[in-house]
Amino acid sequence: MAFYRGITTNAPSGGVNYEKLELDLDGFEVRLKPLLTGICGTDRGIVNGALPFAYNPHGFSRLVIGHESLCKVEDAPKNDFGISSGDYVVPMVRRPGKCINCFAGRSDNCSDGDKHEAGITGLHGFMREEFGDSAQYLVKVPDPSIGDVAVLTEPLKNVEKAFEMFDVVSKKSIFTDGAGSYHEKNSLVVGTGSEAFLYALKSMDYGFNTYLTNRHDLDVTKNELIDKTGINFYNYNNNDPLEKNGLDLVIDTSGDPATIFRFMRRMKENGILILFGTNGKAPATQVDGMDIDYIIERNISIIGSVDGSRIHYERAIQDITRWKHQYHGALETMITEKVSPDHTEIFTKKPSNEIKTVIQWS
Amino acid sequence: MAFYRGITTNAPSGGVNYEKLELDLDGFEVRLKPLLTGICGTDRGIVNGALPFAYNPHGFSRLVIGHESLCKVEDAPKNDFGISSGDYVVPMVRRPGKCINCFAGRSDNCSDGDKHEAGITGLHGFMREEFGDSAQYLVKVPDPSIGDVAVLTEPLKNVEKAFEMFDVVSKKSIFTDGAGSYHEKNSLVVGTGSEAFLYALKSMDYGFNTYLTNRHDLDVTKNELIDKTGINFYNYNNNDPLEKNGLDLVIDTSGDPATIFRFMRRMKENGILILFGTNGKAPATQVDGMDIDYIIERNISIIGSVDGSRIHYERAIQDITRWKHQYHGALETMITEKVSPDHTEIFTKKPSNEIKTVIQWS
Amino acid sequence: MAFYRGITTNAPSGGVNYEKLELDLDGFEVRLKPLLTGICGTDRGIVNGALPFAYNPHGFSRLVIGHESLCKVEDAPKNDFGISSGDYVVPMVRRPGKCINCFAGRSDNCSDGDKHEAGITGLHGFMREEFGDSAQYLVKVPDPSIGDVAVLTEPLKNVEKAFEMFDVVSKKSIFTDGAGSYHEKNSLVVGTGSEAFLYALKSMDYGFNTYLTNRHDLDVTKNELIDKTGINFYNYNNNDPLEKNGLDLVIDTSGDPATIFRFMRRMKENGILILFGTNGKAPATQVDGMDIDYIIERNISIIGSVDGSRIHYERAIQDITRWKHQYHGALETMITEKVSPDHTEIFTKKPSNEIKTVIQWS
Amino acid sequence: MAFYRGITTNAPSGGVNYEKLELDLDGFEVRLKPLLTGICGTDRGIVNGALPFAYNPHGFSRLVIGHESLCKVEDAPKNDFGISSGDYVVPMVRRPGKCINCFAGRSDNCSDGDKHEAGITGLHGFMREEFGDSAQYLVKVPDPSIGDVAVLTEPLKNVEKAFEMFDVVSKKSIFTDGAGSYHEKNSLVVGTGSEAFLYALKSMDYGFNTYLTNRHDLDVTKNELIDKTGINFYNYNNNDPLEKNGLDLVIDTSGDPATIFRFMRRMKENGILILFGTNGKAPATQVDGMDIDYIIERNISIIGSVDGSRIHYERAIQDITRWKHQYHGALETMITEKVSPDHTEIFTKKPSNEIKTVIQWS
Repeated sequence: MAFYRGITTNAPSGGVNYEKLELDLDGFEVRLKPLLTGICGTDRGIVNGALPFAYNPHGFSRLVIGHESLCKVEDAPKNDFGISSGDYVVPMVRRPGKCINCFAGRSDNCSDGDKHEAGITGLHGFMREEFGDSAQYLVKVPDPSIGDVAVLTEPLKNVEKAFEMFDVVSKKSIFTDGAGSYHEKNSLVVGTGSEAFLYALKSMDYGFNTYLTNRHDLDVTKNELIDKTGINFYNYNNNDPLEKNGLDLVIDTSGDPATIFRFMRRMKENGILILFGTNGKAPATQVDGMDIDYIIERNISIIGSVDGSRIHYERAIQDITRWKHQYHGALETMITEKVSPDHTEIFTKKPSNEIKTVIQWS
Repeated sequence: MAFYRGITTNAPSGGVNYEKLELDLDGFEVRLKPLLTGICGTDRGIVNGALPFAYNPHGFSRLVIGHESLCKVEDAPKNDFGISSGDYVVPMVRRPGKCINCFAGRSDNCSDGDKHEAGITGLHGFMREEFGDSAQYLVKVPDPSIGDVAVLTEPLKNVEKAFEMFDVVSKKSIFTDGAGSYHEKNSLVVGTGSEAFLYALKSMDYGFNTYLTNRHDLDVTKNELIDKTGINFYNYNNNDPLEKNGLDLVIDTSGDPATIFRFMRRMKENGILILFGTNGKAPATQVDGMDIDYIIERNISIIGSVDGSRIHYERAIQDITRWKHQYHGALETMITEKVSPDHTEIFTKKPSNEIKTVIQWS
Repeated sequence: MAFYRGITTNAPSGGVNYEKLELDLDGFEVRLKPLLTGICGTDRGIVNGALPFAYNPHGFSRLVIGHESLCKVEDAPKNDFGISSGDYVVPMVRRPGKCINCFAGRSDNCSDGDKHEAGITGLHGFMREEFGDSAQYLVKVPDPSIGDVAVLTEPLKNVEKAFEMFDVVSKKSIFTDGAGSYHEKNSLVVGTGSEAFLYALKSMDYGFNTYLTNRHDLDVTKNELIDKTGINFYNYNNNDPLEKNGLDLVIDTSGDPATIFRFMRRMKENGILILFGTNGKAPATQVDGMDIDYIIERNISIIGSVDGSRIHYERAIQDITRWKHQYHGALETMITEKVSPDHTEIFTKKPSNEIKTVIQWS
Repeated sequence: MAFYRGITTNAPSGGVNYEKLELDLDGFEVRLKPLLTGICGTDRGIVNGALPFAYNPHGFSRLVIGHESLCKVEDAPKNDFGISSGDYVVPMVRRPGKCINCFAGRSDNCSDGDKHEAGITGLHGFMREEFGDSAQYLVKVPDPSIGDVAVLTEPLKNVEKAFEMFDVVSKKSIFTDGAGSYHEKNSLVVGTGSEAFLYALKSMDYGFNTYLTNRHDLDVTKNELIDKTGINFYNYNNNDPLEKNGLDLVIDTSGDPATIFRFMRRMKENGILILFGTNGKAPATQVDGMDIDYIIERNISIIGSVDGSRIHYERAIQDITRWKHQYHGALETMITEKVSPDHTEIFTKKPSNEIKTVIQWS
């Protein structure tokens, strides 16, 4: 029994402590020390008691939070997954249930909801000084020299999964342009948080004519990121450079129904709208018969996409490795602040210029 | 220049006449005589001036309506499509534009909206004593002994296309059950019109546990069809046998947003909701943040599907051939009435027990 | 313990007896009586000791042969699969192992070879007066009025699986013609046995310009089948109507390497060659660098396809139902002879005009 | 009319000159200067008169060779493809014909063979001091700081296309392991030329347990590349570390039938064998009935793959960008020699330690 500290809540009612834990690590083959853990909206939602689906692990009155993590392996027995002491790894969030998709390694597509998510639903998360895990749930960072930006692997794996969904669904017609590419296709990412930027970078990799939009202008930090990466941005309350063009791919990170349907009504034939951002408290919008008609007449698809599996973590690390070099420092500017674990007010007070705030553990 | 009669409107303002036409058939290689033409909601919508997107052919003040048709070939020169005098054929509704999908023979997936639909948008339809067409737009009925039910080919081709879309989209996870089949999956078809019945029959072919639902009980004719085919039906205002089960596939033929989202909220993980029915005048419903969250967390897909291409007409004829024999007369009961062309009040007064009313031309 | 008779061999050495069996049926929930069992090359191969991979069930010195079967349910307890007393069913041949494909109900794609095949590898087959099985391995014939031809379900399920493979692989380029269909594509089925005819009928359903070929002319019975179905046939030793045209789809049922590569060298760009027929004793042919080059420069695919799963049995029954009516008696002519179970010389002496010989059990 | 020099042959008879050209550049909107052009087996084959399918452009008695190129844009008018003066670009090899795949931008899948390949079939290639091209056939290198290794784009695009083919074909069963990944799957690349190394790197990106093999040991340069990238190598004439394991993916770059079938006979269920390397003069091997049987019983696929389209060039540049950094200098060691254009003996005398020899133009 080891004594170490972690950041906990009482799910789903909320609250946040940085406290000593009494958790037994012995059941896990690999011992890990987090280096960085990212903070996202889900963490803040749990702490603020806004996520009714969160719950403590069975038999516990507290839940260690945190699911975005970059860790160093302290100790690992010989295993089938090539995980050794000293490796840098990203632990997977979701752990499989017993359905057919989980059996095939795709708990991101769990068929019956019987899975767990570390730091969210019934499983302790990664915001602690030390923890144990099974080698099969650890994804190795092959080139640790990519540094801090490896902590973006977990949020980026969601993007990789969503584009896998796009790849499947877009086969229902000829989606590509006359060069078999995406250059004549318009992609719009709604929102300007860290996930939105990652979606926009992936969209540019595909070759889409890519825009990011929000209902306000960007601050200095985000404008710098826009400049360095070449992403296009516009404030949709002021102007709309895409006004005359339809949208072929829309990716929503806002979770706001009014915004989603605003842009759905701008989509072109065979368009694909990916829903990713959630905001359970977002107000309702009106959807009428003309909207349904619009979707049908244009063969439009609306695709909900959640989580990602091992292969998406691996692709995320590959993309981070490339983007780090291709964008010459831009990716690093996404990590806007590093705080210490005892700085728990970060969960209730979001820094005004935040893209991604991370907790530094050592 | 031939003189013959047809059923016309002035699109999009509406009205209906059975009148002498002065249409030149000489530009078309194949001369056709309709045997039966089906009447659907679109025909009534045009006549009632309710479809703003309908328009007369260029240079014409009237539009011949009708797009569901079974015809006999009166005269055909030698052609590459195997169409000969005496053949029974179904003419295709949509005619290609210049986009990449149209070029590939898939005008049902037209990328730019630059196509035409016979009897609806800028092209004369099939409700006339005689007309000409190109062999490439005619689909042969290989075994004419299937008789009148061949007139269901056009509406059924929409079902075939929608299930092709299902086939593509359902590959984004493992959708099938532990036997690699659909028997443990629940399919719900919303609506009880002719298209709804065709969707339900196709769903049963897949092996789905298939239900048809509406907000009222069925009349005698439809109950007979239910009995003979083994489709399950329930009145969703009274009871709900699927209450405890989630829905894996929902197909909407109502076009009503409130109904669509009512059943969307009952879908299971990886569920697919196909939107087919349109009703531009349907009242709005509220869609809120929890709905968006529901779609995302369960990887749900909402797929608009319109029209179908040659291959779907061909599959439709194959399914009709089989169903005719498999259901021992049930399919025939879908044709609830045959009227003569001059009975134009049929477009404004829908028979109370209608499943499919057809006009008999000879 | 019941006493009844069955047709047995000693696998893999061979021989054939019609003899009393002492097999316990009590372990199986459903009791079945075969009506008809088809005889195929595999049965004859086992009897003649030509199939080294065949083996007796564990602990048995004999193997009941037979895997093509149409049975009547004598007795069935209530089960999840809708199998009741009096039903007509086709039992599945392959039974799953523990791999990921077997878990997903696709033992036809077994990843590790750890499955069993009734009547062939370690599992008693269906050529016996009575036997027991689990409901989950029985496929119901919904409309028993289709009669004897339902015994073709098992061989046809192989065809359905192979075309599923075609559907997947053909997506690697645009395979269809300018109408989005297969009419301008040439399909050639090599061989003229019962499987070859079934492949040709399925190919015609797709709309392919379909040819059947062999190195000799056809007898009266097969010529009649050709006439009634409209399949094209040519003797490739005499003439070749496709000489100037390339082949888009080739399906081999011969298992003969020289024949396979003869036609591979005639394939067009993006062509797909499906290997189905096996003949382990077929002599070797020469494959050289120009052949490899030919395959590469044209993006040709060669696809081995074996067996089929529940969904393919179901599609087979649907196709048989339609073909029976569409071809007005042609399908029945495929069953060229019915023999009694004690007529075991049928396994060593193939009737000269055989398409499909079946054993009639009651 | 400009006068400049280029490397020419008289296709298909062969020979090689470095000579003054009289080629009109005026028909092309973009003026290009090659920086580096890679030499591959096809170039040597043409020079040696070994490729009967090569031919001079219409009306010319010489063919400028060369299809692997990295160029700098000298001058470009405003165009839709974002190509500006000073850009680094890779010109595409294949130019479309009129078939449906070419129309969709996929001349790599040309349906009728009516396309041209620069430097090979009827179109002047890139080994000249200067040339003109259309912007639509130029692929931009977004980050020119990747340097010389960008000349590997053209050979790597073949790899990207082949893995796209793998992605499609591998969907015909569940190919991935229990983690939804490729780590428990064995991939073998046959050959040790530059393409083989690129295939092996891509295979490692997928996560395959990847081996490279040949019938001899490697020289110092290649061993260094093996060490730096972590690819596994074995000499198949000495030992075989995979002896007890089956192969899930085999990629052949040798074009040698005996070698191809040697490893085909080692494949596992659902295995995919990609044919890429061509050697028209390779001697024949024997393929017998047991081989055909092996392919069928295991659902094995053999896939010929040639060329690639715009999207594959783009992915190639992305992979090169990442590999350059991930493998810390290993990629650069693949360029084993730079020669000047007048060093034409390089086409007839392959350097003993060559991985990729390039011609430096400025």
